[in-house]
Amino acid sequence: MNVLKLRDTHEFIPGAMKRTFLVENSPYFKIISFNLDAGVTFPVHSHDLDGEVSIQVIDGEGAFLGEGDTEIFAQQGDILISQIREPHGVRAKTQMRILVVIAPPI
Amino acid sequence: MNVLKLRDTHEFIPGAMKRTFLVENSPYFKIISFNLDAGVTFPVHSHDLDGEVSIQVIDGEGAFLGEGDTEIFAQQGDILISQIREPHGVRAKTQMRILVVIAPPI
Repeated sequence: MNVLKLRDTHEFIPGAMKRTFLVENSPYFKIISFNLDAGVTFPVHSHDLDGEVSIQVIDGEGAFLGEGDTEIFAQQGDILISQIREPHGVRAKTQMRILVVIAPPI
Repeated sequence: MNVLKLRDTHEFIPGAMKRTFLVENSPYFKIISFNLDAGVTFPVHSHDLDGEVSIQVIDGEGAFLGEGDTEIFAQQGDILISQIREPHGVRAKTQMRILVVIAPPI
């Protein structure tokens, strides 16, 4: 039993994305915090693996990105659920914090 | 690709716990929103199964509960990581929203 604190990973890097692994060694899921500075894009990507990912907006707003030109407005409290093999990404309009859960971990 | 909105599950039931399944049919994880009215306890429980659970405080404050008298202050942005077979629970001091991810789903 372990308690993680999102407020311990509040840093932003100007013009870039700050990544912090919160749960890294579990056989069941990986949990990662990403802080995107305003204007930063987490590029659309996918992996040819079975599994699912959730991307929760903790703070800020922007868009979830998908295949082609897919773009879905995203704000605090929105959670994207995507297969790992489906293209997915995020673009930050404001500074944006997202929490990503990947199961199984890859 | 599907977007869930935590603000769509903001209801509280006086003196009780309101549960909403956000991701229910994935083979990889289950995601559930629980809204606990002030003073409500999500009793300590465990299952004799392999897997891990994360319990994220979305709003409000209270305590994460564990084996015996274990009690850890919990507020917005805190995430309890526990094995499914470890005893875990939550007690709400104020109205409290938690987001639970269980992998694999049980």
